[in-house]
Parts: sequence; structure tokens; C-alpha cells
Amino acid sequence: MVEPGPAVRKLIEVPVDSLYGPDNLPYCVFAPAESGYRVGARLADSVIDLAVALDDPVFAQPSLNAFMAQGPRRWHEVRDRIQGLIDGEIAVEAVHLLSDVTLALPVRIGDYVDFYASIDHATNLGRLLRPDSEPLLPNWRHLPVGYHGRSATVVVSGTEITRPHGQRRTDSGIPDFGPTRRLDIEAELGFIVGVGSNLGTRIGPDEVAEHVFGVALVNDWSARDIQAWEYQPLGPFLGKSFATSLSAWVTPLAALETARMPIPEQTPRPLPYLHGEQPWGLDIDLAVSWNGEVVTHPPYSRMYWSPAQMLAHLTANGASTRTGDLYASGTISGPEPDQRGSFIELSWGGTEPVIVNGQKHMFLEDGDEVVITASAPGPDVRRIGLGEVKGRIRPARSG
Amino acid sequence: MVEPGPAVRKLIEVPVDSLYGPDNLPYCVFAPAESGYRVGARLADSVIDLAVALDDPVFAQPSLNAFMAQGPRRWHEVRDRIQGLIDGEIAVEAVHLLSDVTLALPVRIGDYVDFYASIDHATNLGRLLRPDSEPLLPNWRHLPVGYHGRSATVVVSGTEITRPHGQRRTDSGIPDFGPTRRLDIEAELGFIVGVGSNLGTRIGPDEVAEHVFGVALVNDWSARDIQAWEYQPLGPFLGKSFATSLSAWVTPLAALETARMPIPEQTPRPLPYLHGEQPWGLDIDLAVSWNGEVVTHPPYSRMYWSPAQMLAHLTANGASTRTGDLYASGTISGPEPDQRGSFIELSWGGTEPVIVNGQKHMFLEDGDEVVITASAPGPDVRRIGLGEVKGRIRPARSG
Repeated sequence: MVEPGPAVRKLIEVPVDSLYGPDNLPYCVFAPAESGYRVGARLADSVIDLAVALDDPVFAQPSLNAFMAQGPRRWHEVRDRIQGLIDGEIAVEAVHLLSDVTLALPVRIGDYVDFYASIDHATNLGRLLRPDSEPLLPNWRHLPVGYHGRSATVVVSGTEITRPHGQRRTDSGIPDFGPTRRLDIEAELGFIVGVGSNLGTRIGPDEVAEHVFGVALVNDWSARDIQAWEYQPLGPFLGKSFATSLSAWVTPLAALETARMPIPEQTPRPLPYLHGEQPWGLDIDLAVSWNGEVVTHPPYSRMYWSPAQMLAHLTANGASTRTGDLYASGTISGPEPDQRGSFIELSWGGTEPVIVNGQKHMFLEDGDEVVITASAPGPDVRRIGLGEVKGRIRPARSG
Repeated sequence: MVEPGPAVRKLIEVPVDSLYGPDNLPYCVFAPAESGYRVGARLADSVIDLAVALDDPVFAQPSLNAFMAQGPRRWHEVRDRIQGLIDGEIAVEAVHLLSDVTLALPVRIGDYVDFYASIDHATNLGRLLRPDSEPLLPNWRHLPVGYHGRSATVVVSGTEITRPHGQRRTDSGIPDFGPTRRLDIEAELGFIVGVGSNLGTRIGPDEVAEHVFGVALVNDWSARDIQAWEYQPLGPFLGKSFATSLSAWVTPLAALETARMPIPEQTPRPLPYLHGEQPWGLDIDLAVSWNGEVVTHPPYSRMYWSPAQMLAHLTANGASTRTGDLYASGTISGPEPDQRGSFIELSWGGTEPVIVNGQKHMFLEDGDEVVITASAPGPDVRRIGLGEVKGRIRPARSG
């Protein structure tokens, strides 16, 4: 038997312009070259294996769920311990280069709910789909409109997206069946529930930090032709359920403290169950690149309904929540044309081409790649990066 | 140490009019007085502990999921073994009286999808909600309309249902927040996926028996005032997500062989991806009792879209399915007034009272109890009973 020698340790260097400095520390589930999936935290271009660095089996699991279920006091304690560790040298076996590991879906998803919280997006869609009437429906300013999506088809960033088939309305009024012709994105922010709530209880808008573990970028791929034909009266179904991409990185709420800000004024004032005292607007700037060229900059700061209001609404009827639930903001669009978070808005319903690398684009073509990135102000010179969400379009299967 | 004596064995007597004879054998998850939850099968008024009777750890689990994941060949083998066992005497420690055990939710639910497959229900709702236009929307005869519901709030039969709060539209046009005034039921049949399908693949309408393990009655409780205000444009959300009751008993598809029948003619003929050769209509008669009085008899045989078509549609875009997924038919209504499967239909939008025990009723009052039962023809004189789904209304919580 060989005695272990003194551990080899090293300091992780963090460039001054890194989006992943010691105030960020997003979590992931990763696999090093020769072992199974476990929980890691990112510093600069390294992943720290928390199962090794903190010697805790809660991190030796293929999802964040067990750790998230331990609750906010524990989340803060672990973050403090990681920040303590990275101030010094870390055992080399606990540190991997990001380029050497495989990332997985970080969360075992419970229920997935998607909201519709951007007033600019809802107004744009109303103008495009119902040009002869008021763009916002009567309920929109009274409650955060939302619906349940398919949790089985939430996939990790990087998963290729196969162009889905579906029923498409034709000029004859009789639908046919074939690959979608209007494949689109929706740039969104997702909120991940760490601590659930029991059936029959509500989560108040000032209790969000007791329940939400963190945030992650979402691309809610949408087949607009399938959606337009199917969605009345019960809402989106197959036009959305083929895939929803989630970033591999979950940014803890604690890393977004300096990004918090008031939400824009709400008129009329929301009902008391939606009215909290804490500011839960978030100053997060997104960028969407289409085949490598940034085509829009959606600002999360302009969202009408806050994540605290969404969670309060979701549970207003006593619905229970669970560790791993994901609720997303809906498409993030700002008031300016170059702040729209979907291609149906950017191309104004397919009538105004978007120029990408000198070529006209409307909806997604096979082979196209979309990458959504985001960042927020941090407590010092470094910004807080949110892990990207990306996906490339594969051709439809035959038949 | 005491040597075990010869096992004491007994024969389970089955009355000739039992709905739970040897051709039925529905599955449940139950706990005897002094041990944990495990899988059982029902014969007459007894539950057979399959973990003991078949000496197999797949049944010593608090859900059917592990067994269901083993696939249809194994489902048939286990059914054959149980039928062999009950022809003779069974060890007494494997048999419990139904009245001595506690039943649990039989399935760990993956995704929950609810369809809208009854043409009479969809027509009635169209007449009630949009009296000035065609009751059926243009897409209805082309595809089984459906949407995702909340899987966390699928509860086992017998769970009390707390009247939910929500936003209700008022005469002023400004909503208020309070307990629903239009609490309703939807009598449905649920289909439980045993073997899932991968992302990017479809399940054809003739492949349903390779994937669906069995059926169970569902009551999709609905708050009509909350639903009416919230549902545009993204569909039902809080008006449904507070609770969906599932029977404790899952009837295997094999027990419904004699109930299979053609579905009613579909005009226009469905697109090829929805067209199968196998008959998947089901001759199942439901009865809904309201405070002990049967008020309606919805016939499943009149459903327009078959469960095979629903599953084919659900996966037409390549969406994956998982062991434990639940998809339900939507409200089952027949063409006659006494075949309507919801109280909004029975009371025609709250305008024609339903007489229950001599009293006028419109929607559910606190303390009301609803029990949905059903049965189908069996291979001999005995009918095949589906386990009931029941629930009693508790008053809203304060505030």
C-alpha cells in the first residue's frame, strides 16, 4: 500500500474581465473524463468538484436537487465555504478545466411553468396575431398569465433540436402534417425552486428567496405554425413541447444581489396577494446570437411581472411546489426593435427579414445555431455572467 | 429461533356479482396496518400483497413505476401468475381485507396531459362560452386538443379538496380575489404510460398497447370563474392546478379486452399519423354521484378521439414520454342531458339547477362529496369495475 503524499494544491487564476469571478460561482452537474456526474461550481474557466472539495455526498449526485432541498441557510453556508476555498489553493483533484468535462441537465425537473411576463412581448404578439383588436387581453395587467409546459422535454444547453413535425394550417383551411416552417426561439429567464411548498399553502411575494434557489437562461423553442393552429382554446401544446433548452449553469440568487432593482410601475396596482415590499426586478442584459451574430439585446429589467409575483400567483390557489420545479419568465422583449426576444417579433411575423451575416433570415433554417448569453452588474468591476443556452437545428426526421 | 410452521393458506371467495373478479385484477399501492407501502392487486374485497405473494422486490415499492417500466411481456406474465395463484389458496400473510389497508397514489406521475376528446362536451362548452359562434373551433375535428396540467397536484382518490382562491371577474370588470364560486368536476378516464418513448420518436396509433399500462378514473376539479378569467390566450392554469384526483386503482389494459370497440365515425378522416387499424374505443359506462345520488351516466363509448390517437398526437412532434406519464381524456359527455360529465353542463352554465336529494344544486358547495365509478363488460357474467375516484370539498382557507 502506498501512503498518499502531500496533496498537490493550486490557486485558480481569475482574469479581471472574467464573468465568472468569486462573486458569481454558478452551479452545474458535470462529469470529468473518468467518473460519473456530480455537482460542480464554476470559477473562471475551471469547475470545482464539490463532492471532492467539500467532501460531502450531497454533491456526488447527478442533479442539484438534494442540495437544493437543504434550504437557503445551507445554500449560503456552502457559498461561503466555496468562497473561502477559492481564496487559497485547492487540491488539484477537485479542479477540472471546463473544456475537459461534460455538462448535464443540472436539475431533475418537477413541473415546468412558462409565463408571459413581458408587456412588450405580449403587446407585439397581440399586434401580430390579432391586428384588429386591443393587443393586450383584459386579464393581462391583472395577473401574470402562464401555463404548464412539458417537463420531460427540458434539455440541457447544447442538445441539438430536431425540427418537429405537426399539423400546419394550409390555404385550403384543411391542415397538412409536416415539418414546421416557422421554427422560432424565445429568450427567457428560468427560476428554479429549491424548497417546495405544501398543497393548500401559498408563497407570498416576499418569500421568494426562501424557495427559489437560482436562475438559468432558457430557450423555449416554438413552432409558430403548429402553435397558431392548435392553441385555441386550451393553449400551446405540441408547438412548444418538442424541446425547451435550459442552461447547464444555475446562478444562485445570492450572486444577483447587486442586480436587484424595482420593477417598472404596474397600472393598475396588483391585488394584495401579488404585492410585495421587496424589489425583485433584475438588471440582467441578454444577447441573442444567430449563427454567431448578435441580433438582439433583450433587457430583463423591463419585465412587467416579477419572479416573486409569478411564484405568488402560481401558488395562489394552493398548488404545491417541489424541489426542481422550473418556472420561466416567457419571452423577454424590450420596447425597442433590437430588444425583441423572439424571431417572430424581430421579423415582424415573417415580413421584415433579419439580416444575419449579410443574409436575409425570417425563422430558423436547418443548421442554424442560436446562443443566448446574459450578464448582470456585480459588486465590483467584474460582471456576473449567466451560463449560456445554445442549440443547433437538425433537419426533421423523414416521414 | 422458531422454525416456521406450515404456511396457513386460504381461498379468496369471489361473489358472482363482484366487479373485481379474476378477470379484472386492478393494481394499487397500499400499506397494511404495520408496514410500508407496496404494490397490491385486488380480488373481490381483498388486496393481494404482490411483494409477498410473488416474492419480488419490484412490488415492494411505493409506486407501480418500476413494475410498469418492465414492459408489456412482463405485465402479461405477472397477470398470468396472479390468475394462477388465485385459482388456489394463497398464504394468509399475502392477503389483506381492503377495509384494513391504506391506499396511496399508485403512480409517481411524470407529465400530466389533459385532452378534450368528447365532441358532446366540447360542443356544450362552446355553446355555453361562445353562444354567438360555431360551438366547435376549426381545429377540433382535425386533432385531439390537449394541454399540460400540473403533475404535482395529482392526488389519490379520497384526498379532500380545499376550495381554491383565485382572481374572479366582477361586474365592474375589475377582478377581485377570493374563493371560487363555481367549483366543478370533470369526469374523465386517465391513461398511464408504462413504457416511455425517446425524444425524437413517435408512438403510432397501433402501438398504444406497447406503451400504456392501464387506465384509472380521474376527476379534474375545475374552478370555472378562475378559469374563465385567466385562460386566454395560454389556456387553463390556476383554475385546474389546485387538484386533480386519480383513482387508487389502475386497471390493466388486458382487463379491458372485452370492452374494446370501434370509435364513432370521424369526419373528416384524420390525417395518416392519427389513423390506426386497431379499435381503441372503450365500452365503459361511468356514473357520477353527488352527495350519494347518481346525477349523470357519461358513456366513454361516445368519445370522438381514441386513447391511441391521443398518444399518437402527443408524440407527433417527437416529444418524449416516461414511465408514469398520465394523459386523460377530458370530460366524458354523451349526447343526452343525463350523460354530461361536468356540472357546468348539467346545470347549463348555472342556469338549470340539478336536483340532488330534493335540493337545487348548481356548483359544488362546501361539504359536498363526488364519487365517480365505472364498469365495462367482462368475458363472463361479471362486469369489470374501475376503481372509484372520490373527493369531498373542504371550505376555503381564510385570507
